[in-house]
Amino acid sequence: MDPVKVIEIKKSVFEDNDKDADALRTELKRRGVYLLNLMSSPGSGKTTTLVRTINLLKDKLRIAVMEADIDSDVDAVKIKDATGVQSIQLHTGGMCHLDAEMTRQGLDGLGTENPDLVILENVGNLVCPAEFDTGSCRNAMILSVPEGHDKPLKYPLMFSVCDLVLVNKIDVIPYFDFDLEKCREYVRMRNPKAKVLPVCAKTGEGVDAFADWLLKEVNEWKNN
Amino acid sequence: MDPVKVIEIKKSVFEDNDKDADALRTELKRRGVYLLNLMSSPGSGKTTTLVRTINLLKDKLRIAVMEADIDSDVDAVKIKDATGVQSIQLHTGGMCHLDAEMTRQGLDGLGTENPDLVILENVGNLVCPAEFDTGSCRNAMILSVPEGHDKPLKYPLMFSVCDLVLVNKIDVIPYFDFDLEKCREYVRMRNPKAKVLPVCAKTGEGVDAFADWLLKEVNEWKNN
Repeated sequence: MDPVKVIEIKKSVFEDNDKDADALRTELKRRGVYLLNLMSSPGSGKTTTLVRTINLLKDKLRIAVMEADIDSDVDAVKIKDATGVQSIQLHTGGMCHLDAEMTRQGLDGLGTENPDLVILENVGNLVCPAEFDTGSCRNAMILSVPEGHDKPLKYPLMFSVCDLVLVNKIDVIPYFDFDLEKCREYVRMRNPKAKVLPVCAKTGEGVDAFADWLLKEVNEWKNN
Repeated sequence: MDPVKVIEIKKSVFEDNDKDADALRTELKRRGVYLLNLMSSPGSGKTTTLVRTINLLKDKLRIAVMEADIDSDVDAVKIKDATGVQSIQLHTGGMCHLDAEMTRQGLDGLGTENPDLVILENVGNLVCPAEFDTGSCRNAMILSVPEGHDKPLKYPLMFSVCDLVLVNKIDVIPYFDFDLEKCREYVRMRNPKAKVLPVCAKTGEGVDAFADWLLKEVNEWKNN
């Protein structure tokens, strides 16, 4: 009766995660699989953003999603129901992050032969996931408007490891004290190369720019 | 020029945190100090809620605040400027939680002789802080409306260790798909004894109920 596959992720036995992550990236390059590691706070809108984005890209790319969560499988079910793409749930058993070996367990569990794009929705946490290289080709994160524009000041590592920051829920900016320019400035303090894209997953505003970025990334990964 | 004291917290050397937390609680009981451990996601409104609450209680209780953060001291400055109570910043140096020994370092750094109430604003993270007993008399957490009512399903430990759940930002319920009754139901699934209080730190709505709860808690701790 369970509509999605649920994998209980085992704790990693590898001591050198950076080395293991590099090995996974090399393997993904050989297979032509682009892996995006998507991080954020709880409730920032990762799953809703993914649904919108996948529906823009699913006719152009073979896509699979790994939803990491401590418990529940609501996100994997939502992705599967709303997009039709392959989606599995990874249960971390209380662990606050994924490392490269845990990510590999998820990829093995997907059972899909070399999709073009795999998106890993990491555990909702702005601290620990930033400390572990998952073996992804890129790190992206979502900061939602209600969380406040000062988050790059408070969670420096998260913002310094991300190549792309999606600022979500821009439809509610009038109801919160959120300054998009200050946000851009604080993100640049942590990572001058990071791209900042304002989006609204609820209405779809700006999500096409994220889809375009992803499509370009995947094509460059496969062809260079 | 720094208006608040900043303490760089050292990693704990104690192996048995539960035992250490019990020892701290016994010491606090002897000194008549009530310690509240306040947890939440990043950006849920912990600091704003504290400012409102402290201003309701500061004539009745001697209050001190410890603001734990990975970096920055914006929260401790905000508390001090807006309430006048003793407020210090604890820098965790990248660590995702506080344990009892780290909390003791903060209490020692306060330098205040036996306040009635010390509030520890833990690192913004729904995962790791729930795993470590800080030695507090009670755990409370803030869930803000934009995060969604499904969070007790996804972060079970956090909701099971909390005696009180403040549901903040209720002024924006009309703009989000947030069901307060479902939220109460999910909190009860994790902890049938947990109290749920809807508040709006921005307007002050419901904050008096939190202040009343805290005042009663402090008096019971000191007198029983």
